Amino acid sequence: MEYLELLLKGLVVLFPIAFCCMLITYKWSFRKIEKEPTKVLVTGAAGMLAQYDILLAFPGQIGYAILPMIARGVMLGPDQPVTLHLFDNIKQADEALNGIKMELIDAAFPLLKGVIATTDIVEACKDVNIAVMLGGFPRKEGMERTDMMSKNVSMYMAQALALGKHAAADCKVLVFAKPSNTNALILKEFAPSISEKNITCLTRLDHNRALSQIAKRLKVHASDVKNIIIWGNHSSTHYPDVNHATFTTKDGERLVREHVADDHWLKTEFIKTVQHRGLAIIKARKASSALSAASAACDHIRDWVFGTPKGTWVSMGVCSDGSYGIEPGLIYSFPVRCENGKWSIVQGLKIDEFSRAKMDATAKELIEEASFAKSCLNEQ
Amino acid sequence: MEYLELLLKGLVVLFPIAFCCMLITYKWSFRKIEKEPTKVLVTGAAGMLAQYDILLAFPGQIGYAILPMIARGVMLGPDQPVTLHLFDNIKQADEALNGIKMELIDAAFPLLKGVIATTDIVEACKDVNIAVMLGGFPRKEGMERTDMMSKNVSMYMAQALALGKHAAADCKVLVFAKPSNTNALILKEFAPSISEKNITCLTRLDHNRALSQIAKRLKVHASDVKNIIIWGNHSSTHYPDVNHATFTTKDGERLVREHVADDHWLKTEFIKTVQHRGLAIIKARKASSALSAASAACDHIRDWVFGTPKGTWVSMGVCSDGSYGIEPGLIYSFPVRCENGKWSIVQGLKIDEFSRAKMDATAKELIEEASFAKSCLNEQ
Repeated sequence: MEYLELLLKGLVVLFPIAFCCMLITYKWSFRKIEKEPTKVLVTGAAGMLAQYDILLAFPGQIGYAILPMIARGVMLGPDQPVTLHLFDNIKQADEALNGIKMELIDAAFPLLKGVIATTDIVEACKDVNIAVMLGGFPRKEGMERTDMMSKNVSMYMAQALALGKHAAADCKVLVFAKPSNTNALILKEFAPSISEKNITCLTRLDHNRALSQIAKRLKVHASDVKNIIIWGNHSSTHYPDVNHATFTTKDGERLVREHVADDHWLKTEFIKTVQHRGLAIIKARKASSALSAASAACDHIRDWVFGTPKGTWVSMGVCSDGSYGIEPGLIYSFPVRCENGKWSIVQGLKIDEFSRAKMDATAKELIEEASFAKSCLNEQ
Repeated sequence: MEYLELLLKGLVVLFPIAFCCMLITYKWSFRKIEKEPTKVLVTGAAGMLAQYDILLAFPGQIGYAILPMIARGVMLGPDQPVTLHLFDNIKQADEALNGIKMELIDAAFPLLKGVIATTDIVEACKDVNIAVMLGGFPRKEGMERTDMMSKNVSMYMAQALALGKHAAADCKVLVFAKPSNTNALILKEFAPSISEKNITCLTRLDHNRALSQIAKRLKVHASDVKNIIIWGNHSSTHYPDVNHATFTTKDGERLVREHVADDHWLKTEFIKTVQHRGLAIIKARKASSALSAASAACDHIRDWVFGTPKGTWVSMGVCSDGSYGIEPGLIYSFPVRCENGKWSIVQGLKIDEFSRAKMDATAKELIEEASFAKSCLNEQ
């Protein structure tokens, strides 16, 4: 009885303490902490270069679309203040950049702590933690391929030097401007001080497009589909692979392949639709994708920084380590999991013959693009 | 001693129960509930009408800017699913609307449960809970004022009839297309089934611009400034009033007027900068404000639905009840507080002579605009 009483007394003392601790933890977890602003660079922010691309009827739409998303916390979370660095490397962009800055200020975004609008690459890169590279020279009709590649090579060489010298040591870089994998490759070569693990290119747009097409086919919501893979180049040779994809039903996870009976559709129409979705958008809008591209870029960075949800992966163009037989050093889109701000390529996925051929074809295009870029480099 | 033991035992029994209850409540408050999607109509979504306005170099930018914001939860919160109804009333807009729909689907927004893209006003208005009216005929250079007003009158008459008949009974309407106050007035006249309390026009953009200008002057962040007022018409006659505005310092709230010593600046340059900010943006961007306008429209609806923070008000164009001597029935921008999805005009603010004159001047413009709209109506 004495022991029982002691036990009871012990409990009486411990419970209030536990109770108070819980309350304090609860309160504490909701307190307001003012975090340091993250500096986010967006190149090609005014989109002045797009004037070289006759397909882009409205210049600068991706930059214009992504800036309010970043300022609203879509990219880095609703409690992360940001400073935006807007850069465009044409002197005439000054006024347009300033106009965008005025609008960003006018919107009175609570998270936006500052805006730098500049055509000086050194000022633009200063201490940035995230760099979203939208600036580039897409190939316009009638433009020589060499001309296009030379322009990109020299632009990305200059920007790599500035980033390597002035950005934060752990700056995360996302290249979106086409040819994005090869632009990222040039950036990697000329910014050796930035870890190659921190240089990526965007294939999340293709990834999201593939999710949406499968969701439409299965009559489910896109957020119920996961683990699609985009392999390779962010060009029309990329390969959207659904062999490992699943979707959520009331009865749990199901393999997409087991529910889309039409293998022919998956191997032909589905792949073509995803590969040529960009052109279909241009045909309908008379302007290239901006809203969906900007949204995908936010998804890419957010998952990279905060991690992919448990049991899922996403597609990112990253430096190959030789996984799945892809030439090491190439910037190639793989399935990746992210954790603690780092990505790692998902290993051990079974690759069938059909996939192998598609993966090799897009790798081949990338190898050829890389060697072409190098030849343009040597001429400079 | 017996009593003490009883008390101890009682506590031992009660604490675990309390503990479990807390845990359950905590878990429960974080459980996932799938809410019903809110149906949001956006008119002028493809912006085809903007072709009539030579100032708008890039058509449809506000629609294009606001759609991803709504789909990301900026307007209605991060846990509120939405269905988007995109409408444009030019048949040729079909393809462009479809292009935007494709992009919205491609972005795989988790909250976006459906997209309807249509040029049929009845289908567009069906059961909508929120209507954002971007479609309108701005006056282009060389256009007759009567021509501009007649086009708007007949458009808003038709849309009012459709909204009145097909929208949800408690549909909240926000008119943004210029002349926005008068367009809202026409809508109110021809949609008697929609409560006049549910018809508003946007002056939040002017409000946010005024906040930012004061913040810049005081070297504080825009979110630290509050209780500015935009009085009157969403035109260059609106009056940004800082007489009751405060800003947050380390030592508490301070009156803006007491810290901006330069009364002349407040009465001249400040007012002019806010009134003509739209033109300054057009001059810099070669396109009218879209990003900041879309963001302000989200702010307007969000505060209306979820309430203004305690102790603060915002500016909204609402139906005058005669407050501050403004002609009842006019759609006029007032300081409003929102609670439980309803706005109410802030009462009892002291109005000095300078303010009175400015408030009356913008009211006079609105009265004249309303009577002009009615004359256009009679001719139809």
